[in-house]
Amino acid sequence: MKLCRFISEGIYAPHFGVIEGDFIRPLIDADAIGSRPRTRSEKIPLAQARLLAPVTPSKIVCVGRNYTEHAAELGNKMPDEPLLFLKAPSAIIASGEDILLPTQSAQVEHEGELGVVIGRLASRLGEDEDPLTYVLGYTCVNDVTARDLQRKDVQFTRAKSFDTFCPVGPFTVTDINPLNVAVTTRVNGLVKQQARTSAMAFSVSYIIRYISHVMTLNPGDLIATGTPAGVSKLAAGDVVEVEVEGIGVLRNQVKSPGE
Amino acid sequence: MKLCRFISEGIYAPHFGVIEGDFIRPLIDADAIGSRPRTRSEKIPLAQARLLAPVTPSKIVCVGRNYTEHAAELGNKMPDEPLLFLKAPSAIIASGEDILLPTQSAQVEHEGELGVVIGRLASRLGEDEDPLTYVLGYTCVNDVTARDLQRKDVQFTRAKSFDTFCPVGPFTVTDINPLNVAVTTRVNGLVKQQARTSAMAFSVSYIIRYISHVMTLNPGDLIATGTPAGVSKLAAGDVVEVEVEGIGVLRNQVKSPGE
Repeated sequence: MKLCRFISEGIYAPHFGVIEGDFIRPLIDADAIGSRPRTRSEKIPLAQARLLAPVTPSKIVCVGRNYTEHAAELGNKMPDEPLLFLKAPSAIIASGEDILLPTQSAQVEHEGELGVVIGRLASRLGEDEDPLTYVLGYTCVNDVTARDLQRKDVQFTRAKSFDTFCPVGPFTVTDINPLNVAVTTRVNGLVKQQARTSAMAFSVSYIIRYISHVMTLNPGDLIATGTPAGVSKLAAGDVVEVEVEGIGVLRNQVKSPGE
Repeated sequence: MKLCRFISEGIYAPHFGVIEGDFIRPLIDADAIGSRPRTRSEKIPLAQARLLAPVTPSKIVCVGRNYTEHAAELGNKMPDEPLLFLKAPSAIIASGEDILLPTQSAQVEHEGELGVVIGRLASRLGEDEDPLTYVLGYTCVNDVTARDLQRKDVQFTRAKSFDTFCPVGPFTVTDINPLNVAVTTRVNGLVKQQARTSAMAFSVSYIIRYISHVMTLNPGDLIATGTPAGVSKLAAGDVVEVEVEGIGVLRNQVKSPGE
């Protein structure tokens, strides 16, 4: 199943919905999402809708240094447990919206990642519980990062939380195998990052259980699972695409502040 | 004006409200808060209500090392601009609720702080705009921190985002002067931290404008403005109080996981 969030004429507030061919079937509960979405009977033509980011998380939990070669390219050792950080939800934009280069940074980079959308409340998951049963679905995330500010601050927060620094989408897909899909990032059509999620140091299952022992994950929360090697600097005019196999392509253009 | 969030019999969902003597006057808009709260005509006796944390922020932005003596006690240099980090909103608890010591840490410490609650959307504030006009009010925050994990991870996220690690409250007060109030933290009645906010390296006004140039601040967002010197380790059974002059006392007991 392919979930989206959208606005369209005749529906005056953003709605979650299910994509069925060229149509969207809105969910009954307009702006909440759970593990068992119920749809309304009407259908809205996809062409008449504007797709928004498919998630409205209460928090975005990210995992740093989860692919060995990416840790190496930034000169970092691999951590012995998942390295967590948070990105501000105010940074979220949809596929098709612009990444704005902030004046404070001279080195903004892409980080394409598999995103995990939580479906039901997850707290202190036991070893006998399958963390994937707490997942609603998966999406593409671009964990845009001001590399120079990340180095200066040491704390990742500012470097990763500028407005527009979290493209997410275009859909949340429920039926992929997160443990082994390809994650590809292209800039102006050229492949920059590519890996299978099977290369992660800590698997999606491991990460969800680990986070659940620190903080309660709420329905709709987003986990960005780390980026493969190949990060590179973005310039105004670039088009970045993050594609996760079975989900789709998250596409954003880069703009300078003056534009 | 003193704002709260509460539940009580006859009101089946959490509501924001205004404290008037021994009564609460609920806001018309049940679960949203803005810069001009409108109240309903009925009054609910304070004794019949349970006070919740007075905020439901879309993000909690914190400022590290904002008092010189606290930076020094942890062996850190003062930053040349505000050092930002985020705390997970899932960590919020109310006054009266328990801080739970996680099994992962052997050194959990209190950090009493002035909290700023945003009243209206703040983005890229100009030099001629008064950032304080974007504030709804002020509250007490305990930025509870697992000091050992903070050192290990370098990133502050895990150390500061455990469930129950963000006591906030008891009220949001609209009419204090945030630039010069006393912030006092007591453990079992003994004063551990005490400073006036006039000793901050970066004032509340400076911080709000600074953050607004990184990320859009939404109504209800919470800013924790940094902690004075005197942080100390908490043990099960301790009672921590954070008091901000003119707001009230945020009081929480510490419990071990087994309790």
